Amino acid sequence: MPNLKLTISYDGGDFAGWQTQSGCRTVQESLEKVLSEIAGERIILEGSGRTDAGVHAIAQSANFRTARVLDCSSWRRALNDYLPRDIAVTAVEEVPDDFHARRSALRKRYRYRIHAGPTIDVFSRRYVWRIPRLLDDEAMRAAAACLVGTHDFRSFESSGSRRRSTVRTIHELTVARPHPARPHELVIEIEADGFLYNMARAIVGTLAAVGRGKRPPEWVAQALAAQNRAQSGMTAPAHGLYLLRVIY
Amino acid sequence: MPNLKLTISYDGGDFAGWQTQSGCRTVQESLEKVLSEIAGERIILEGSGRTDAGVHAIAQSANFRTARVLDCSSWRRALNDYLPRDIAVTAVEEVPDDFHARRSALRKRYRYRIHAGPTIDVFSRRYVWRIPRLLDDEAMRAAAACLVGTHDFRSFESSGSRRRSTVRTIHELTVARPHPARPHELVIEIEADGFLYNMARAIVGTLAAVGRGKRPPEWVAQALAAQNRAQSGMTAPAHGLYLLRVIY
Repeated sequence: MPNLKLTISYDGGDFAGWQTQSGCRTVQESLEKVLSEIAGERIILEGSGRTDAGVHAIAQSANFRTARVLDCSSWRRALNDYLPRDIAVTAVEEVPDDFHARRSALRKRYRYRIHAGPTIDVFSRRYVWRIPRLLDDEAMRAAAACLVGTHDFRSFESSGSRRRSTVRTIHELTVARPHPARPHELVIEIEADGFLYNMARAIVGTLAAVGRGKRPPEWVAQALAAQNRAQSGMTAPAHGLYLLRVIY
Repeated sequence: MPNLKLTISYDGGDFAGWQTQSGCRTVQESLEKVLSEIAGERIILEGSGRTDAGVHAIAQSANFRTARVLDCSSWRRALNDYLPRDIAVTAVEEVPDDFHARRSALRKRYRYRIHAGPTIDVFSRRYVWRIPRLLDDEAMRAAAACLVGTHDFRSFESSGSRRRSTVRTIHELTVARPHPARPHELVIEIEADGFLYNMARAIVGTLAAVGRGKRPPEWVAQALAAQNRAQSGMTAPAHGLYLLRVIY
C-alpha cells in the first residue's frame, strides 16, 4: 500500500490540540474522519508529534497508508474540499515505505510571535502573545545564546511528561523583528532535534522575562544549569506558537 | 457636559454588527455597557453609522456625553481594561459640543481584502475573502474608474433600505496589491461621502466578477447606468470588509 505524507496547516485556536481525545475536537480526528471518507476505509494518521491545545501549525507533517488509488493532487483537492476551514493540506506526496512522520523526523522548528508594546491589535489576538510593554530584544538575544547546543533542558520541561532523557540539541534560536511594517512584533524561532513537553513555550516565557527587564540575561544560563523548572520563567501562552516545519 | 469622541477598532467576526439589537452581541451594546460602568451613569453612544454583522473596523468613530470627570487617557486605559478582547479603543478625545459622530462625518473610507489564488491560508479565513483563482487587477482597475464621481448608485444598494436619495460621490476607489510578501492579496479601498446599504460589498462583488473574467470591464458602467441591483454583481462577504476611517 502506498505511504502518503501530508503537510498540514491549522489554526489551533478552536482545537484541543493535535491528538485524538474522546469528546474533544482535535486536528488528528478531523483529518482522519475526512481521510477515511475519501478512502472508503478507516485511516490511521501518524503525526510528527502532538501539538497542545491552541498551538498552530504552518507545516505539520503526518503519514498514512491506504489501498485507495488516487493521485496526490486529487487527494489534496478532495481533502481541502471537505476539511473544516481551520485546517488546510498544503502538500500530499508519496514517500518511501519506511517513512514514519514521527520516527523519521530529524528536527523540528517552532516559531513564536509576540506583540510587544502599548498598542492593541484586535485582529491578531488569536495569533500573537501580546505583552503590553516594550521588550529589549538585544538582551533576549544575549540570553538565548547559552541555550544553543546540547544541554539537559529539564528546567524548561513542564511536569507530566515521562521521557527518559531530558537532553536535547538546539541547533538554532533566533530573536528578530522581521516585519518592518510591524515593528512591535518580535519573532522567536527555535530549531531542535526534539522538544520536551512545553519546552518551546518555557524558553519563550523565560526570554520574555529578560526582555521585560525583570531578569538579567545571565539568569537564563543559571536557570538552565539549575535543572529545575521552578528556576526558569513562565510558560508562554499557546496561541503565539506555530509548528513551522518538520525536517526529515 | 464634555463631549468625548472614541476611535474604535473591532473584529466583527463574533458580533451581530454595530447597532444594539435585543438578544444579539453587538459592538455598540458592548461599549455602552463598559462606558456606563466606568461613568456610573447610563451612557448612550452615537456611532458614525452601522456596520453589518461580520464587518470589521480599523477606526470606527463614536461620541458620547458624560458628567463623569476623567481625563482622556484614563478613559482609554479603563475602557481597554474592561472591554472584550475583540474591541479596542485606540483614541479618546474631547471634541466641540456640536460634534456628532454621524451628522458631522464628511466621508468614510472602507477597505476590502481579497486573497486570490489556489493557496489556502487558514490564519486569514476570518479576515479575507478567499477567491480560489487568480484575479486580473488591471481589468478591475479599468472597470472601477467609471464609479468614481457623483452617480446614482441604486445598482449597488441592497433592498431593505429606505433612503430618499441614492446619489453618492465616490472620491477615490483603488485596487492594489500593497503587500510584496503577500502577492495574492488584493486590497480595494473606497472613499465616499456616504454609502448605501451594502454598497461597498456590492461594488467589490461586481469588480471581482470582472477580475475573474466572467464579465468585461465595460459591464460595470452598464450596471451603474441600469439603476437596478439585478444588473450588477454579487454582494461580497462581510468578513473581508473594514471600516478604515471616518473623515470629519
